Amino acid sequence: MKRTKKVNIDGPSLKIIPLGGLEQIGMNITAFEYEDSIVVVDCGLSFPDDDMLGIDLVIPDVTYLKENADRVKGFVITHGHEDHIGALPYVLRELNIPIYATRLTMGLIENKLREHNLLGHTKRKVIKFGQSVNLGQFRIEFIKTNHSIVDAAALAIHSPAGTVVHTGDFKVDYTPVFGEAIDLQRFAELGKKGVLALMCDSTNAERKGFTQSERTVGHTFDTIFHEHQGSRLIIATFASNVDRVQQIINTAHKYGRKVVVEGRSMVNIIDTAMNLGCINIPENTLVDIDRLKDYPDDRTVIITTGSQGENMAALSRMASSVHRKVSIGPNDTIIFSSNPIPGNEKAVTRVINELEMKGAEVIFQDVHVSGHACQEEIKLIYTLVHPKYAIPVHGEYKHLKAQAGIAQELGIQKENIFILRSGNVLELNEEKAGVTGQVAAGAILVDGLGIGDVGNVVLRDRQHLAEDGIMIVVVALDSISGQIASGPDLVSRGFVYVKESDALMDEARDLMENVMEGCVSRGCTDWGRIKTAIKDNLGDFIWKKTKRRPMILPIIMEV
Amino acid sequence: MKRTKKVNIDGPSLKIIPLGGLEQIGMNITAFEYEDSIVVVDCGLSFPDDDMLGIDLVIPDVTYLKENADRVKGFVITHGHEDHIGALPYVLRELNIPIYATRLTMGLIENKLREHNLLGHTKRKVIKFGQSVNLGQFRIEFIKTNHSIVDAAALAIHSPAGTVVHTGDFKVDYTPVFGEAIDLQRFAELGKKGVLALMCDSTNAERKGFTQSERTVGHTFDTIFHEHQGSRLIIATFASNVDRVQQIINTAHKYGRKVVVEGRSMVNIIDTAMNLGCINIPENTLVDIDRLKDYPDDRTVIITTGSQGENMAALSRMASSVHRKVSIGPNDTIIFSSNPIPGNEKAVTRVINELEMKGAEVIFQDVHVSGHACQEEIKLIYTLVHPKYAIPVHGEYKHLKAQAGIAQELGIQKENIFILRSGNVLELNEEKAGVTGQVAAGAILVDGLGIGDVGNVVLRDRQHLAEDGIMIVVVALDSISGQIASGPDLVSRGFVYVKESDALMDEARDLMENVMEGCVSRGCTDWGRIKTAIKDNLGDFIWKKTKRRPMILPIIMEV
Repeated sequence: MKRTKKVNIDGPSLKIIPLGGLEQIGMNITAFEYEDSIVVVDCGLSFPDDDMLGIDLVIPDVTYLKENADRVKGFVITHGHEDHIGALPYVLRELNIPIYATRLTMGLIENKLREHNLLGHTKRKVIKFGQSVNLGQFRIEFIKTNHSIVDAAALAIHSPAGTVVHTGDFKVDYTPVFGEAIDLQRFAELGKKGVLALMCDSTNAERKGFTQSERTVGHTFDTIFHEHQGSRLIIATFASNVDRVQQIINTAHKYGRKVVVEGRSMVNIIDTAMNLGCINIPENTLVDIDRLKDYPDDRTVIITTGSQGENMAALSRMASSVHRKVSIGPNDTIIFSSNPIPGNEKAVTRVINELEMKGAEVIFQDVHVSGHACQEEIKLIYTLVHPKYAIPVHGEYKHLKAQAGIAQELGIQKENIFILRSGNVLELNEEKAGVTGQVAAGAILVDGLGIGDVGNVVLRDRQHLAEDGIMIVVVALDSISGQIASGPDLVSRGFVYVKESDALMDEARDLMENVMEGCVSRGCTDWGRIKTAIKDNLGDFIWKKTKRRPMILPIIMEV
Repeated sequence: MKRTKKVNIDGPSLKIIPLGGLEQIGMNITAFEYEDSIVVVDCGLSFPDDDMLGIDLVIPDVTYLKENADRVKGFVITHGHEDHIGALPYVLRELNIPIYATRLTMGLIENKLREHNLLGHTKRKVIKFGQSVNLGQFRIEFIKTNHSIVDAAALAIHSPAGTVVHTGDFKVDYTPVFGEAIDLQRFAELGKKGVLALMCDSTNAERKGFTQSERTVGHTFDTIFHEHQGSRLIIATFASNVDRVQQIINTAHKYGRKVVVEGRSMVNIIDTAMNLGCINIPENTLVDIDRLKDYPDDRTVIITTGSQGENMAALSRMASSVHRKVSIGPNDTIIFSSNPIPGNEKAVTRVINELEMKGAEVIFQDVHVSGHACQEEIKLIYTLVHPKYAIPVHGEYKHLKAQAGIAQELGIQKENIFILRSGNVLELNEEKAGVTGQVAAGAILVDGLGIGDVGNVVLRDRQHLAEDGIMIVVVALDSISGQIASGPDLVSRGFVYVKESDALMDEARDLMENVMEGCVSRGCTDWGRIKTAIKDNLGDFIWKKTKRRPMILPIIMEV
């Protein structure tokens, strides 16, 4: 279970190099390397932490791939969630490499590439479950799994040094809504033949038992529809959970309700799923939101985005009365078919309160099942695959560690379990395994159009500005006499409400005048020193008076 | 269950005026008014929302009390949590009014007043359970309850218009760790005599069943201590949960371990509790943190603050290796005896990950019970007190509404249930009840020493600065010729990392030169117009190039 273990590996070996996904849930990307061949599994983004002010999204540092671009044979994608496909449009700008994925996964990737004008330049191939693709010295086989999105795949990565099974994100659903159950027989067959390493989803490794079937949510919908026949139903869920939407539509059809799909990402994904035949919508069931008013409340269902309390999502706009086409009232029942993702709890609660204040009923418990395997499912996969080495993936440290504990319980030797960090180079073959090196890895921040132009300095400044605002001191010095030509003027933003703090600002201005006059009378012409004097004196004064530390920015002009 | 209902109340009536506590959990304060007498129950603070950047804490607007200061007879405090006592030092600066509270509650209030140099000026009286205090036309009786802090009281507020029972924060604990169980007999007796209104804690009104006894956590500690006899134990919990600390000390004593208390607030509260006899510590059990090294790991327990992942708390400092006296290693077992308060989930998880990366074991599930009544306890109190009117308190709207549902289920008429908002004046007597007015109420932000000097404008500026930073354009104009004497100079903070964006900044500077020259050549001397031209042109340029909107601040100097 050691994190880094320096060893020498003799003979041909496989290298596994995670470039993200091991410090958090998000930004999954892992390179597999055998001699002249590199294959990359997934290429996801993550969403910014609270302290990444103003950042839109975070993508992995792929310097290692760029440096070895000639050897990279392809991106192999397990499923269509943002944390597995979201960085593709950014990475593909710099690396023109083909993509291999199953049907819906590819559909969602194509939507992204189209938005970024990359569709024409990118080679793509849709792979069916059970099929393999040869990429250099690798053969990559796609295996059917279940997850909270249709067409999720596990991968068997066959290399001359042995086979690695990568589960992708998965659960075991014996009664899935769409398509087959996870192909447990193939996992067993691979295990029987011998698997070098298992890379298994750790998201729910802390949770006991089995994750329930997606179909149980369908039963819950049935009960809710049955008990709320008089009211309009509004159901919020994850846009990408096509099976969930399918079940809502099935239930709506059974109870004779029309269905409106609302929220941009929801509409896009359902469109894609319909085009690919991943969702089955009875005729005359879907209606446009503009036709909502043509039906009585008790004959409609709205499926909407916003289940995480996202500010700009459709449900939040309804809750705060800024949605143009839906206004909430006492005849509405709103169902959160989702759990809040950690960090979103307060936002979700805010939306629930707003909805209830409008008189609506809100149902937010037990209308959701997870898409990830719990402990008993993880044990099942380990037992079927029976790997020599275990490499827990997809999770924060505590999740990876929980899976490492399970692996050990199942008889995998402690020294054969690897909790890696992004950038680690794990080298392995039948004889030996260990971390033998380190490559560049990390997070690149995307803000607007800027990729990587916001770094620690900018973030620190934003945090400083957010905390106590800014005070700007401008002074103009005569270039010949060195005397003060104008100023010092003080301007503040985000510090205090100036009208109420006139006296404070006046005192600060007097202080700055004294400081400047002191500098000038001493004949100080070193702008660096003058700026330091301004910063120190004003900083001390403000702290003493207010116990705040606004950013102080001296600007000197020469006229 | 209507929120506001305009009615006329004939004859003498009681007014209940909540000034906080009904829009959130926090900032509890309610005025009770009968003719010339006003009594205020609790005076709490709340912690800032995520969008209140840089704010330290939030206190209620007590304009109404200040305007009626001559009639305010006293503050009556239910218990010593921050959301019930935290605003006292701020409010008492403006209102010199006596305080009535039970022993530990008063001890904690006195700590606060001492810190703010208010102890000498404030009249205080410690009240025992079962005792009453006469305040103008009111008689306030203190009734024993159970809560996650010792000495919590419910209040019977006797007025000529009838009796109101205010539960404070409570649970029903038949086997409390310290002192007696809640005085259910007194609730019953009051109910028998007739209670006008019940104001009952709503925090857990959405949760089914009964909250477990604090003592069950003691059994959990026993199991953990028994199973971890070889390692050092570090237990994080709420500083104010004296009973929890008592149980940890009892278990430590049983297993022959020395106890270190760490974290400023924890040390303060335990000191106060010891001085008042609210905690019972066996001799030679407590040792100073400096003596920790004198004992083997398996003979020590550290009780610490930081159970909510607070950045600067002791446990977070241990986790991130900046604690001066405790370093975490594989021989440590850390126990979170707490649940994350909504909004703190991510911070807690971060600390758990950091601790596990250091090799420590972390236990964070099922070592905590709530201090608030669940549905069955709420039903019990309603049934004993049998009020005419129900006024759910202490919670967000969804909690208040859940309790309103329970009250209705128990037979209280819908029109006799009032979900109030801060500032509502509820007038009531045996005949009638309704909202008859509105007084000033709201949140005042405290930032450093400033109380109320940060308002919406300042917060909006901070949010803007946090999102995309600031660009400052300075230009000096000759006062005689109106020509540009110097500049325009551009300075940015929190926008882009300038070294990587040289070209962008150069282009922006050229643009600003053109704009200024245009203004000057047109003879424009209206600074307002010049500033608008700068803002518009630079704003458009930056948006087009970066899709960001930094704050743009033009500064013109006259030389």
